Amino acid sequence: MLHPHRKRTHKLGLPPGSLVYVGERPNTEVTLSVIRFSEDVLESTTATDVPELARRLQQPGTFWIDIDGVHDVGLIEQIGRLFHIDPLTLEDIVTTTQRPRFSDDGDHLFIVTRELSFDAAKRVIRHEQVSMIVGKHVLLTFQERPGDVFDIVRSRLRQGRGQIRQRGPDYLAYALLDVILDHYFLVMDEVGEETARLEEALLSDTADDAQSRLNRLRRELILVRRAVYPVREQLHAFLRSESPLIHPETRPFLKDALEHARQIADTMDALRDLLTSLTDQYTSDLSRRLNEVMKLLTIISTIFIPLTFIAGIYGMNFRYMPELASPYGYPIVLLVMLGIAVSLLMLFKRRGWL
Amino acid sequence: MLHPHRKRTHKLGLPPGSLVYVGERPNTEVTLSVIRFSEDVLESTTATDVPELARRLQQPGTFWIDIDGVHDVGLIEQIGRLFHIDPLTLEDIVTTTQRPRFSDDGDHLFIVTRELSFDAAKRVIRHEQVSMIVGKHVLLTFQERPGDVFDIVRSRLRQGRGQIRQRGPDYLAYALLDVILDHYFLVMDEVGEETARLEEALLSDTADDAQSRLNRLRRELILVRRAVYPVREQLHAFLRSESPLIHPETRPFLKDALEHARQIADTMDALRDLLTSLTDQYTSDLSRRLNEVMKLLTIISTIFIPLTFIAGIYGMNFRYMPELASPYGYPIVLLVMLGIAVSLLMLFKRRGWL
Amino acid sequence: MLHPHRKRTHKLGLPPGSLVYVGERPNTEVTLSVIRFSEDVLESTTATDVPELARRLQQPGTFWIDIDGVHDVGLIEQIGRLFHIDPLTLEDIVTTTQRPRFSDDGDHLFIVTRELSFDAAKRVIRHEQVSMIVGKHVLLTFQERPGDVFDIVRSRLRQGRGQIRQRGPDYLAYALLDVILDHYFLVMDEVGEETARLEEALLSDTADDAQSRLNRLRRELILVRRAVYPVREQLHAFLRSESPLIHPETRPFLKDALEHARQIADTMDALRDLLTSLTDQYTSDLSRRLNEVMKLLTIISTIFIPLTFIAGIYGMNFRYMPELASPYGYPIVLLVMLGIAVSLLMLFKRRGWL
Amino acid sequence: MLHPHRKRTHKLGLPPGSLVYVGERPNTEVTLSVIRFSEDVLESTTATDVPELARRLQQPGTFWIDIDGVHDVGLIEQIGRLFHIDPLTLEDIVTTTQRPRFSDDGDHLFIVTRELSFDAAKRVIRHEQVSMIVGKHVLLTFQERPGDVFDIVRSRLRQGRGQIRQRGPDYLAYALLDVILDHYFLVMDEVGEETARLEEALLSDTADDAQSRLNRLRRELILVRRAVYPVREQLHAFLRSESPLIHPETRPFLKDALEHARQIADTMDALRDLLTSLTDQYTSDLSRRLNEVMKLLTIISTIFIPLTFIAGIYGMNFRYMPELASPYGYPIVLLVMLGIAVSLLMLFKRRGWL
Amino acid sequence: MLHPHRKRTHKLGLPPGSLVYVGERPNTEVTLSVIRFSEDVLESTTATDVPELARRLQQPGTFWIDIDGVHDVGLIEQIGRLFHIDPLTLEDIVTTTQRPRFSDDGDHLFIVTRELSFDAAKRVIRHEQVSMIVGKHVLLTFQERPGDVFDIVRSRLRQGRGQIRQRGPDYLAYALLDVILDHYFLVMDEVGEETARLEEALLSDTADDAQSRLNRLRRELILVRRAVYPVREQLHAFLRSESPLIHPETRPFLKDALEHARQIADTMDALRDLLTSLTDQYTSDLSRRLNEVMKLLTIISTIFIPLTFIAGIYGMNFRYMPELASPYGYPIVLLVMLGIAVSLLMLFKRRGWL
Repeated sequence: MLHPHRKRTHKLGLPPGSLVYVGERPNTEVTLSVIRFSEDVLESTTATDVPELARRLQQPGTFWIDIDGVHDVGLIEQIGRLFHIDPLTLEDIVTTTQRPRFSDDGDHLFIVTRELSFDAAKRVIRHEQVSMIVGKHVLLTFQERPGDVFDIVRSRLRQGRGQIRQRGPDYLAYALLDVILDHYFLVMDEVGEETARLEEALLSDTADDAQSRLNRLRRELILVRRAVYPVREQLHAFLRSESPLIHPETRPFLKDALEHARQIADTMDALRDLLTSLTDQYTSDLSRRLNEVMKLLTIISTIFIPLTFIAGIYGMNFRYMPELASPYGYPIVLLVMLGIAVSLLMLFKRRGWL
Repeated sequence: MLHPHRKRTHKLGLPPGSLVYVGERPNTEVTLSVIRFSEDVLESTTATDVPELARRLQQPGTFWIDIDGVHDVGLIEQIGRLFHIDPLTLEDIVTTTQRPRFSDDGDHLFIVTRELSFDAAKRVIRHEQVSMIVGKHVLLTFQERPGDVFDIVRSRLRQGRGQIRQRGPDYLAYALLDVILDHYFLVMDEVGEETARLEEALLSDTADDAQSRLNRLRRELILVRRAVYPVREQLHAFLRSESPLIHPETRPFLKDALEHARQIADTMDALRDLLTSLTDQYTSDLSRRLNEVMKLLTIISTIFIPLTFIAGIYGMNFRYMPELASPYGYPIVLLVMLGIAVSLLMLFKRRGWL
Repeated sequence: MLHPHRKRTHKLGLPPGSLVYVGERPNTEVTLSVIRFSEDVLESTTATDVPELARRLQQPGTFWIDIDGVHDVGLIEQIGRLFHIDPLTLEDIVTTTQRPRFSDDGDHLFIVTRELSFDAAKRVIRHEQVSMIVGKHVLLTFQERPGDVFDIVRSRLRQGRGQIRQRGPDYLAYALLDVILDHYFLVMDEVGEETARLEEALLSDTADDAQSRLNRLRRELILVRRAVYPVREQLHAFLRSESPLIHPETRPFLKDALEHARQIADTMDALRDLLTSLTDQYTSDLSRRLNEVMKLLTIISTIFIPLTFIAGIYGMNFRYMPELASPYGYPIVLLVMLGIAVSLLMLFKRRGWL
Repeated sequence: MLHPHRKRTHKLGLPPGSLVYVGERPNTEVTLSVIRFSEDVLESTTATDVPELARRLQQPGTFWIDIDGVHDVGLIEQIGRLFHIDPLTLEDIVTTTQRPRFSDDGDHLFIVTRELSFDAAKRVIRHEQVSMIVGKHVLLTFQERPGDVFDIVRSRLRQGRGQIRQRGPDYLAYALLDVILDHYFLVMDEVGEETARLEEALLSDTADDAQSRLNRLRRELILVRRAVYPVREQLHAFLRSESPLIHPETRPFLKDALEHARQIADTMDALRDLLTSLTDQYTSDLSRRLNEVMKLLTIISTIFIPLTFIAGIYGMNFRYMPELASPYGYPIVLLVMLGIAVSLLMLFKRRGWL
Repeated sequence: MLHPHRKRTHKLGLPPGSLVYVGERPNTEVTLSVIRFSEDVLESTTATDVPELARRLQQPGTFWIDIDGVHDVGLIEQIGRLFHIDPLTLEDIVTTTQRPRFSDDGDHLFIVTRELSFDAAKRVIRHEQVSMIVGKHVLLTFQERPGDVFDIVRSRLRQGRGQIRQRGPDYLAYALLDVILDHYFLVMDEVGEETARLEEALLSDTADDAQSRLNRLRRELILVRRAVYPVREQLHAFLRSESPLIHPETRPFLKDALEHARQIADTMDALRDLLTSLTDQYTSDLSRRLNEVMKLLTIISTIFIPLTFIAGIYGMNFRYMPELASPYGYPIVLLVMLGIAVSLLMLFKRRGWL
């Protein structure tokens, strides 16, 4: 399950713009992968340090520099200096608890978002902060861990499919956001299917773990919502921005992405309503079953307790109990008992309890 | 029941504008039906392919081209090229999970909406995505499956009733939207009647399946809401649009349709509130009945358990139990028991339990 | 109880502006009552048909034409032609499921609203759609059934009280709306008093039908809300309208009516909150009572079940049970039983169950 | 408790501006107290009728005319004529069911608000409608009953403390509103303390009347909210108004009062959330206790019912029951019973029920 | 726990601008600590009275005057006169129940906020009102008690880290707000961790005090929310303000702080949703357990009550009971009992109760 918060304790009270990594520290090295492309060129390499990166940037073309790992704050600072990135922005990149947003400081566009992916093996939703900086000829992406959902974009770049190579870093940023949104749909699909499974299980009365599955789903949805809801606002700001870094041809795509984000939020709302409805159903189901159990107990008790009492009467050892001596005593008592039982059963039948 | 989501998995990561059909794949062929009309002409044919369609369009008049089936993406692409439709729009047409919306790209108006209809035989609500493209002399409609709710409009066209033949594709689009809205009213009617039936059943204590019917209704309403709510926004955008494709005479009709959409949303809200109220009623009904059951059990137990205990006392086999030898022992014990029973009954009466 | 929806089925798919009556068909004839008034004249007659109505309109003065019954669509169409009313507006008049609204088509103001009245005999809230068309010298009112709440206005007209005769149809429309609003207050009063009665009944534990009364109230409020809430919006539009048909002197009255509508909505909200609070109270009351019932059962069972067991022990017929032969066996067992009962009672006392 | 509604029945259908008193009719006479003040003069008298009042107004200075009692509509009408007050405004003054609002008709400012005070003796919240009319040199206040919260302002006037004597009627109106707001804080304090007491009572399990106290509090808060919430809006309108009757120096004070109103609304929201949380706590507390009660019953029953059955077996009078003759029969059965009891206890212990 | 309200009783009815301390009265003396700094100077002293403070202010540089304790209203008044602070503002400073806000009176910026800190020893959240007044060369901070969260800023000032010494009082105010926001994150962390612990405890069925912990958390969150939510609005006003007291270079920092405030509000919302979900879980958990308890009771009762009845039958002392004499009577009855028990067990098994 995602965590709604991450400890920020150790960051307390540093001057603003101080770079302190906030998040789980992965065991991996930071990698700097550089993709240089233009309409007819594509070159994919890995830089070992920032000076080497600076040399690469001398070449013509558009650059996509993907930094996997933001826990090496020294490196992030060097990169920040190389691209003249505002310290406050750098701070946000290494503090991996940002809410999705878009900002524009004139020279760069800054986009923070969360990548969600469903780990089918462990049946958990993974999330990771992805920050993007759109410059004139360069797109920087910062991710927490190696491994991402962008391979599809890389292969589109490699194969030159679509318009991706002809366009600038703004379109590339859009393409990455679009893939992230597509994975939100995937996560929704998983949650939706689990909801459907749960609904079926509740109908067939076989769901012993229904409660815990419901609760898990509700909590997952709460946490996914935090990542997904602000994306509409973010894309709206992206679309509205009058930055010259956004080419007019990119805008229709942003509009389309915004529409997707709205669809995701709608689906999220419907899923939440469905889960609420399932929770209500589960609760009233519990009540209904309790009623049934108690009805059975009451029927059994109401019939047998008086009968046992009668048997108890004639089990008393009083010396003078005239009925005991009568040869008809026993059959009469049995008949009386039968009569009581039958009339009670009829009463229950009439009340609709049987 | 409608599904709040459809799998989009296989679409993942394609460049934007890629046409991949998302939805259930029907077994049917795609049909291209063409209706050409003007004030005094009406010609209704079926085109077999896009070139033939293109030839037909040479003729004068207004065209309504209805494409039944959007899973043949090759065909959709050809149509897109013929009418210069934006690839992103084409993508939305074949992705049958859109939320209702209106957009205007200058040359065309694009309207996505959901058609709801109540299948009385199976007692389910069917839904289908309907996309419309309004051009200068042509209205394109894209539907998922053959069979729709538009026959009434076709017959109005055929008979030349109303103003429908004198007007352009914008009015035709309105007329189709209006029929779709009318079917929303129908679906509301069905839900409303089921709600009323359920309410009556709850009052008469005979509703064993009340819970499942309630839950089914609530979930249906959640899913219908997703289709219906954004329609207000959509019609508002349609009405506000300053596109020259919308004739001034069409606007009052759009205003009227917007008013209908508002009415539907109001009805939806009232139905939701009614269902919430019914759910609360069902739950407190369960509690009330449990109380009654438990009261009976408690009355029976409270009366007979002490009596059985007394009988048990005199059923003990102690040699020295003076009461047993007394000739009045038995009647006295019976009287004591009667006394206890009567006083307990009076106590319950006073507490209002009987 | 009001119905949240009325069947619109038979209207399906007609061209817009088609007049089909939607609503319950009353058995009564449509009546056309005409009141002609000016500062010193008042003439109240009944027209038998539309041509006669047209002749009457030749006379000077202001006209209030009240049409009681909208199911005779032919008549409505004739009236529409006489006053040049838009077919879409006529359609809304005969479709008695409109939500309250105000619209202005330049020549006329169109007001749809719902009249609520409390039928004290049957203890139900009646409702009726009232449409008004404000023209230059004429006010048309369309009602579903004969019998309305406007007699007070008629008598004010007759007696010339207030400013009503000096003013035009806009003021008359306001006066009618004001009376309708006053009846909303009356309906609120009734609901409020029933709420207060219910609250008292819940406090005194005597409310066996509390649940059904609560549910009836909640549902009534849901349906009343649909009629009442949009009135604020409607009056706001009326007030904001720059139509020359609204005289400046009428505006302060509209402002006042708007303030009343806000007050009604506030009262409605408070009533809804009160009902929610009563529902919660009823539910927790059920739980509290169940707890009491179960406590009694548990106390009785916990005390007597072990005692009965002890009696059962000494009721066994084993040949060798040394206690049975002892002369102190019986009193000792009785004392032990007493001891157990007393200590259990003390335990319950300490736990606060007694 | 406050009433969410007051009967308006007897007002029905009068022409607008008709003065009919709506509210409880107090037994007291209406008093007209007049305070005339300027920086160095203060004269406090009581006028017996309106002509006398008119004479007094000839004198120089600022006037505060406080009318205690609005049920004498003849008097109110006279006052209205004297100060040229709009009949609709007069109607609102005598209809003591207004929601707080501010309006400006050019010559006067009209302020309606509700005065809340906590009657410590009867532990109820009292409320009263206070209307104010701000004129050029005069402030009129209309109250329902004698006795108010304004004595503090009167003594400030008398002692010339603060700036109150140097300023005009607008500042005086502010000062009165401020005192009313201060009493809202007092009422909040009372509700807050009762909430805290209730919370403690719930924690210590001693609250037998918790439910009724909770319900009383919730309903009081609903009714207080109706008085308090619109005050923000009202003060905002007051502050925004560009009337020359409001001196620039008064505006910072209005801003301050608005801030107080916001604080009160915030406190109200927090109190409501606290009460909701307490209600939930009470409900789940009931469930928790029921669970405990039922656990005890189940433990006792589960242990003793089987044992009693075994005792019953050996209490049967069959002639051939070999166990009965055995000298070890009795001790063995006792041991078996003990074994069953112990193993059941251990089972319950392991399940955490003991 | 924080208190949602503090008594304001003793303030009632004083003229606006009257200084009366509202809050708990600490036992400490008020201290006036003065920090004078410029790019290369830092001087930290304590003033004993206001005249001494006035002398200090003659020196060049930027001043941070921190007043610890606002209960000495005389002193506050002197300070107010020294810095020409508006009496209404002074009143707000000593009334420690303000909601966070920003205001600008031209000469000063006035910021009220609440400092939250988690006292790990007592496991409570402490809160304190902090007011700031930003002047041209001076920042005044007013706190309720000695001891605060600002030591980190003091040490940054002392060490000259970051830009803090080069900038003016506006930046210093931002730096203090930023530290306060950082402590909100800390408090969120604590609440979040307690939530996670609670969630785990609920899953492992070991949480006997779950209910009280849940309720404590919910109430704490309600009270924290009151402090935290208005901060977004406050920082928005700060950022939007066009006061020349705010240097352009400070604005990006304010933007960043606003982003943090939004993040905090988001986290708060997610925490609240999580707590609601946990509460629902706890409630349905109680129901589920009750069901289990009742099932056990019902199974035991349903099996043994009929068997005990049979044993009771043959425990009766009728002289003529043929079965008793039969040598097979006893074993047959035992077999019948076994048969009943087994068939009931199988029935329960089939119903899924076992």
